[in-house]
Amino acid sequence: MRISDLSRRAGLPVATVKYYLREGLLHPGTATAATQATYGDGHLRRLRLIRALTDIGGLSLRQVHAVIDAIGEADPLGAVHALDARFDADAGSDRGTADAEVDRFVDGELGWKVAADAPARRLLADALVAMRRSGRQVDVAILRPYARAAGWLVTEDLEAEDVSAGPDRSERAVIATLAADAASIALRHLAREHLAGSGRGDRGTM
Amino acid sequence: MRISDLSRRAGLPVATVKYYLREGLLHPGTATAATQATYGDGHLRRLRLIRALTDIGGLSLRQVHAVIDAIGEADPLGAVHALDARFDADAGSDRGTADAEVDRFVDGELGWKVAADAPARRLLADALVAMRRSGRQVDVAILRPYARAAGWLVTEDLEAEDVSAGPDRSERAVIATLAADAASIALRHLAREHLAGSGRGDRGTM
Repeated sequence: MRISDLSRRAGLPVATVKYYLREGLLHPGTATAATQATYGDGHLRRLRLIRALTDIGGLSLRQVHAVIDAIGEADPLGAVHALDARFDADAGSDRGTADAEVDRFVDGELGWKVAADAPARRLLADALVAMRRSGRQVDVAILRPYARAAGWLVTEDLEAEDVSAGPDRSERAVIATLAADAASIALRHLAREHLAGSGRGDRGTM
Repeated sequence: MRISDLSRRAGLPVATVKYYLREGLLHPGTATAATQATYGDGHLRRLRLIRALTDIGGLSLRQVHAVIDAIGEADPLGAVHALDARFDADAGSDRGTADAEVDRFVDGELGWKVAADAPARRLLADALVAMRRSGRQVDVAILRPYARAAGWLVTEDLEAEDVSAGPDRSERAVIATLAADAASIALRHLAREHLAGSGRGDRGTM
């Protein structure tokens, strides 16, 4: 397809598509003339992925670059690891015992089989540390309801998703993951607004 | 306290603290001499907030800027709205009917009292759109388990949190929200790795 069709199907202005091409976020099309190129389904999938990363992932273009570079030929799991790696800007951080607490919780208490270097482990430890730094006395046990909700939601999601093989399997996995992240964040924030407002009655929302 | 103490207590290099000062992310201290200034608890809280935004929120410094600008004197709810606004880079997007579906779901089916302009509504609509663009036929009903889990988790969180008034109330609310977001994302990703791997047996993690 031509760039105008690609742009229309991706729901993005042609100028944006050209910008992504210049920035190397989108691979070049096949040249058909000196100033024309043709684009395929792979380009459309890539644009949908970029949109998901920026729109619902809230990623900056620099972070999108890092995720796309890392996805490459990776399997779906590697793609999700790449996505989570953006949270690890602070790898040398003073998480202290939090890393070990999280590992004991995930491997021991939950008995989940996940890679030892899964970036989500570090994200979890950072969450604990942030709660503690802000003055809350929290134990890793605070994560139990989250783990229960996660197991339940993911089971439902995996039943509904198309996890079949295909050239776009990693992209599908990343988009499904981002969409589920967004749904989970958005609904918790809305629930918080509702419950904090109505419970304390200080928001005038009743 | 001096910048060296501030830096130590925030767990950040002095160079980073100076960088945040130059960038205007951190307000200047009180000058005590031509080249010296003293800093207070407000500075420490701000640095902890910046760390939470970058470490567990995965925000770029530009996004941190936007959130901090918006927090200002806002109440905790406004602060969380400011945090979610980063997902709305695409306000003029072709969400089509998704916005209306989400509003019916939140206001009608769930009966939650939340602001009509809460950015989390748009994030939720974007999540639906992303799932659809990636080829899944999804109905807003797919959000029901997420809403149930959200209501349950937030109820537990609000019981455990310190929601008392104080100059740092908005910062506490943002950090608590970010930490809960991070815990929720991390545990879902770990659950997914565990369940997808062990269920399909294609990851060699058993």
